[in-house]
Amino acid sequence: MKLGDVATPALVVDRQAFDHNVTTMAAALPGPRLRPHVKAFKSTALARELAAAGHRTFCCATIREVEGMAAAELGSDLLLANEVLECRRLGAIVAAGAARVTVAVDSDETVAAAAAGGVPEVLVDVNVGLPRCGCEPGDAGRIAERARAAGLEVRGVMGYEGHLMREPREQKVAAVEASMKLLLAAHADVGGDVVSAGGTGTYDCNLWATEIQAGSYCLMDTEYLPHAPAFRHALYLWSSVISVNPGGWAVVDAGLKALGMDHGDPTVVGAGDCWFVSDEHITFGTSPERPVRVGDRVRVLPAHVDPTVALHDRMFVVVGQGPDAEVTDVWPVDLRGW
Amino acid sequence: MKLGDVATPALVVDRQAFDHNVTTMAAALPGPRLRPHVKAFKSTALARELAAAGHRTFCCATIREVEGMAAAELGSDLLLANEVLECRRLGAIVAAGAARVTVAVDSDETVAAAAAGGVPEVLVDVNVGLPRCGCEPGDAGRIAERARAAGLEVRGVMGYEGHLMREPREQKVAAVEASMKLLLAAHADVGGDVVSAGGTGTYDCNLWATEIQAGSYCLMDTEYLPHAPAFRHALYLWSSVISVNPGGWAVVDAGLKALGMDHGDPTVVGAGDCWFVSDEHITFGTSPERPVRVGDRVRVLPAHVDPTVALHDRMFVVVGQGPDAEVTDVWPVDLRGW
Repeated sequence: MKLGDVATPALVVDRQAFDHNVTTMAAALPGPRLRPHVKAFKSTALARELAAAGHRTFCCATIREVEGMAAAELGSDLLLANEVLECRRLGAIVAAGAARVTVAVDSDETVAAAAAGGVPEVLVDVNVGLPRCGCEPGDAGRIAERARAAGLEVRGVMGYEGHLMREPREQKVAAVEASMKLLLAAHADVGGDVVSAGGTGTYDCNLWATEIQAGSYCLMDTEYLPHAPAFRHALYLWSSVISVNPGGWAVVDAGLKALGMDHGDPTVVGAGDCWFVSDEHITFGTSPERPVRVGDRVRVLPAHVDPTVALHDRMFVVVGQGPDAEVTDVWPVDLRGW
Repeated sequence: MKLGDVATPALVVDRQAFDHNVTTMAAALPGPRLRPHVKAFKSTALARELAAAGHRTFCCATIREVEGMAAAELGSDLLLANEVLECRRLGAIVAAGAARVTVAVDSDETVAAAAAGGVPEVLVDVNVGLPRCGCEPGDAGRIAERARAAGLEVRGVMGYEGHLMREPREQKVAAVEASMKLLLAAHADVGGDVVSAGGTGTYDCNLWATEIQAGSYCLMDTEYLPHAPAFRHALYLWSSVISVNPGGWAVVDAGLKALGMDHGDPTVVGAGDCWFVSDEHITFGTSPERPVRVGDRVRVLPAHVDPTVALHDRMFVVVGQGPDAEVTDVWPVDLRGW
């Protein structure tokens, strides 16, 4: 099948850019130095590619992601890097021997939930500066003790310096160090051998974590690329021009139902400036220098990959560019929902 | 089942608010005066409620929506109010006798696509001021002629005054009139008995269309409600507090994967101000006056219903409020994708 035969709108993975991204990351953080974050792509088929590149430990954000990874036999070491109040579905996976599952805890309640649900291993999630989940660093040792008292194995700590991913490079390194010192202090209180942190924006300057939780690097988006320029845009929306107005604009058949919009407007490649996005449309400006016609196919780059992928049920993997590009694979987005 | 038994995050329809919205609209625009827009809720179960309220003609934005409505035997008059370049899937529905299908056309190419795909009926889509699809009003007669020459039945015109939905009331009425005069002029050139226009924001002041295309009114959202205050919030995200920080914030387990974000941040009801939304989290401010605890359930109102619904595979219908509310129905969101 050629890309030109694929109905629009469709989510497309550029195989060469994807391979570049995977190879670049695997060279920087081989094997278990990287714990790829499944939330960024929600596809066991894509995760299998990362396993083939040497990464066998994965990070998940939802129970559904853990279940899907276990069912796909990618469960040798799954970290649910999020707080969960009802762990029975996770415990069932462990009881069935389908996966090794570790869950993040940051409170007495989440420790109790892990114990009650039958999840045997935890990481203590520590607030390292991003106001989200994670206990205060000084409370980590107490939570670890409580977990051990509840019969849980405490593997170590995690902390996400998400507030630093977009810092200018010259400030980023020092800021990550300061953030990770908080995590290492907590680790000294907690014990265990895991210090899990980081993301695509700090993969090459977080020198303190034992493993980096990165996922966006696989597919990338327009918002993130300036902050991790070693990677390439490997995901786009394949769309069709359905209307051209003589007033100086045109419309493609992809919109809010196909694009995560929290990071702003998408980029209509080689066409014109995005004017606005509606449910099933992007209206963009046209010019005599860049004429478009009804029926033209256009690539649209999302501003944020993660919520974009969550709107699709599959990704078409292609080698090459344009309508003649060969579709070599279709990856189901099989980890949606909760 | 009680709402308290539903795993979070979950999309919830407040039955009483929904009934109020449906009743209010059906009183204002009974039967075929309203052509409910399926894109706003993407559920044949919900559409069936509207059919029971007297509306048997529906509006769709995608081929998938038309297919799903036809399969659900809700296809007595389906308008695909959008331009389509490949109509064979629509033609197959018509050929099978599964639905009456009309498609919007605004160019020679879309007329040719309807004819080639076997869609026998069209509306000429006219630009009435929103820079999106739709031919210029002066070109509508020519396109209708072209459609008739291609053997198509031209049922009339459509035009969406989407740029006026949020106008202050005192300017809205005159602006809608000016916009609809463009559509009526085109209609005079086109013929047919349908003048399809409008939306939830103009349902009560568009006096010129023969039918109004509204969908948001069923569920409503925080962005739209001020512009259509006769309706009520009938949709919310049911979420759990998973982390509380002594620094003055807390986190619920619903985020970008559960909420359309193009219209801005959601509202965390009765809790605190939304600080930011991540993939699976909303961080919101807390205060001594509004304490929250880990495990609390919280309602979150989306800023934009349409793309929010597209992220979920079902809606739980409840009577009452809070964990003891009775779940009376589960409506599959069965019209996602394209």
